[in-house]
Amino acid sequence: MSGSLIIAGLGPGADNLVTPQVQAALDQADEIVGYGPYVERVPARDGLTLHPSDNRVEIDRARHALEMAADGRRVVVVSSGDPGVFAMAAAVFEAVEAGPRAWRDLEIAVLPGITAMLAAAARVGAPLGHDFCAINLSDNLKPWALIEKRLRLAAEADFAMAFYNPRSKARPAGFARVLEVLNEACRDQRPVIFARAVSTPEESIRIVPLPEARPEMADMRTMVLVGTSATRLIERNGLPFVYTPRSVPA
Amino acid sequence: MSGSLIIAGLGPGADNLVTPQVQAALDQADEIVGYGPYVERVPARDGLTLHPSDNRVEIDRARHALEMAADGRRVVVVSSGDPGVFAMAAAVFEAVEAGPRAWRDLEIAVLPGITAMLAAAARVGAPLGHDFCAINLSDNLKPWALIEKRLRLAAEADFAMAFYNPRSKARPAGFARVLEVLNEACRDQRPVIFARAVSTPEESIRIVPLPEARPEMADMRTMVLVGTSATRLIERNGLPFVYTPRSVPA
Repeated sequence: MSGSLIIAGLGPGADNLVTPQVQAALDQADEIVGYGPYVERVPARDGLTLHPSDNRVEIDRARHALEMAADGRRVVVVSSGDPGVFAMAAAVFEAVEAGPRAWRDLEIAVLPGITAMLAAAARVGAPLGHDFCAINLSDNLKPWALIEKRLRLAAEADFAMAFYNPRSKARPAGFARVLEVLNEACRDQRPVIFARAVSTPEESIRIVPLPEARPEMADMRTMVLVGTSATRLIERNGLPFVYTPRSVPA
Repeated sequence: MSGSLIIAGLGPGADNLVTPQVQAALDQADEIVGYGPYVERVPARDGLTLHPSDNRVEIDRARHALEMAADGRRVVVVSSGDPGVFAMAAAVFEAVEAGPRAWRDLEIAVLPGITAMLAAAARVGAPLGHDFCAINLSDNLKPWALIEKRLRLAAEADFAMAFYNPRSKARPAGFARVLEVLNEACRDQRPVIFARAVSTPEESIRIVPLPEARPEMADMRTMVLVGTSATRLIERNGLPFVYTPRSVPA
């Protein structure tokens, strides 16, 4: 019996944003592995074992999944959003590289999902409609100075920016500093979008000019998008549209 | 009768990468508007009118869609991948802003899709597993000098990079210059992934070290991904895995 390991993206939350490819993988799985709140999104059924685990144990979780696949089980590791964007795919490949040689020849596949920045962007218009970057604001796995350096270079490049993990209870001060750095580097009124829990019943969206952005507008469920110097608001009844024009004049 | 305009992402090509949300919008549409090859992906049925158009007429296409929505039709503008990433969403909002005031209060929604860079990344592992940027290499709508500037800043930031529209018959020389700039700025053997027509029957994937990347490895159907200085290959039977570690040591 030949096992397999699939690393699947569940999208940002709504069932109608789960691809049919991922749904088929869930339907055929023997074992579901992942962070508790993501595993909870998979309905129980006969023959399926759920393995929820805590946050910040990605490598242990990856090894456990690989062991079960090597043992002949059909294992699906679930991530929110897309598994390749600040999620489980990189952790699984770290574990593969560090693990037994036989793990390399397991059947391993990554199934993409709707990542949070694209779901958030779609809710307000097209703020990522020009060149952009995606930065994980957690300094759990990289030096804080590198985050600040990247923010400054991204502002100089005039990229739109998408920030994952902007703020947590363990890191209350970092995002305040991010806003300081951006205000120093950008010196304008470009829009900042705080998109919380997009596509879930708890969804909330807030759009403010950069100088009015405040740390407490974000938490760990918030995706933060920052426009380029050219990003525009279209005022209307209700939430304005936000878009970044495709063109930069010569 | 109240019309609506939905800008929907069809994903990179395979039907099982179309979200149920987008499928439902297609099933309820009166009019489908878009670039010919994308409109062709929507099956004909009674009550549905297909409006395929040529490349490079995005604003005309957007206006036509808005006019039909204002006229009470349920219109879906289709894009490949995600509509907010170098696709139709920004063009529609440009047309909204420049158009009659009444267009602003139309029911307009963007439905996200699996964008090409995430489908390509998933096929090889997790090359975008750390901070990254997405750059449109076409200089149809921006000065070439800005593209070179962004490449240099992205290399300095040590972002992984995803390149859309790397090369076309109308722009044969630009991508050769991109590779020159990257080699100057990076001076290493980081992997470059050429992922053509991902998830379609014509899919092909090639992975080479940056100094061995050649312009003719890309065409308009190719997504190009460039690793960071830390991106790793895991050799195995068949195509290696490529991943960018989550951590940067202090």
